[in-house]
Amino acid sequence: MYEGPVQDLIDALCPLPSIGPRSANRIALHFILREGGKEDAERLASALMAVQSVQFCERCHNIAADNLCRICKDERRDRAVICVVGQPKDLIAIERIRDYRGTYHVLGGLISPIEGVGPDDLHIRSLLARLTDGEVTEVILATDPNLEGQATATYLARLLKTVGVKVTQLASGLPVGGDLDYADELTLGRAFEGRRVLST
Amino acid sequence: MYEGPVQDLIDALCPLPSIGPRSANRIALHFILREGGKEDAERLASALMAVQSVQFCERCHNIAADNLCRICKDERRDRAVICVVGQPKDLIAIERIRDYRGTYHVLGGLISPIEGVGPDDLHIRSLLARLTDGEVTEVILATDPNLEGQATATYLARLLKTVGVKVTQLASGLPVGGDLDYADELTLGRAFEGRRVLST
Repeated sequence: MYEGPVQDLIDALCPLPSIGPRSANRIALHFILREGGKEDAERLASALMAVQSVQFCERCHNIAADNLCRICKDERRDRAVICVVGQPKDLIAIERIRDYRGTYHVLGGLISPIEGVGPDDLHIRSLLARLTDGEVTEVILATDPNLEGQATATYLARLLKTVGVKVTQLASGLPVGGDLDYADELTLGRAFEGRRVLST
Repeated sequence: MYEGPVQDLIDALCPLPSIGPRSANRIALHFILREGGKEDAERLASALMAVQSVQFCERCHNIAADNLCRICKDERRDRAVICVVGQPKDLIAIERIRDYRGTYHVLGGLISPIEGVGPDDLHIRSLLARLTDGEVTEVILATDPNLEGQATATYLARLLKTVGVKVTQLASGLPVGGDLDYADELTLGRAFEGRRVLST
């Protein structure tokens, strides 16, 4: 046990994800003993205070510095296409490919009976509301390629059938750069199902 | 890239030890999306501010909430014995065994020609000053059992010879609970050198 304030800092670091007791110790001592540690601590403290003002986009529920997020504010983004994702980090992953120019809708989770998350816990009503004005022509389902993601996509696909909008889902298949014999059977099965015609 | 304040938080977390870009993302989103995340952020921010007031013990250079550290303040600790360690974390490790009742002296590093750390960069003068009043009867060298630690211990042993105080060093040998055939040659060699007589 370190003296009061040092131990308090370690205790505040410990419960954070991907930080164990050993890392918490190392980080706390970094702030105290390392050159520039004092500045790092001040910078982190003010970043933590600033992040308290973060809100969620009124339209798509993405993390936002304002009422609307950066993407919903951007006039150049195509409002006719909505890409539906589970969490903000999925949105960031898709933004990273720099190809997609449409908008997003962040569900805030995925349907998971085990964790007690049902459709009513997700931002689905606001998604439907965005489809009422007839401006949207395509909804891309980009939920995680796992059980919960697939359950959510299936649920949404069925629900959106009644709205009369084109619904698509990201392709499942072999990851680029991977070895075929390392792929699990499910992925390989999906890759077969979704095989593309190259020539006939 | 997340919106301003979120990205600033990620950027403030990234340079910390044992936090990579992926963990920085996870931790930042924990503060924003998880239940209780807001409270975790506030707690960490105030712990970071509080730790700015931490100082170093005037006597032993340990981390201290005051002029003197908890151990130097404690009247029940035996001032006749000084255990010399490299860093505060070594002191904490020795405190954890709950056996040692003497005091400490934190050098603030170890002699390392490669990293340009010489004896003058360590708190050695203040150690000598503590030995002048004749109260101290034993100095235990407890530097790391590596090259730098051994270099520092050897240097100190030679220096303290002139002072006329008993100087001891922690035993090197096989770690308890380990397998003999996993021990490296150096450790095994030290274990042989330091073998104890059980009966004659």
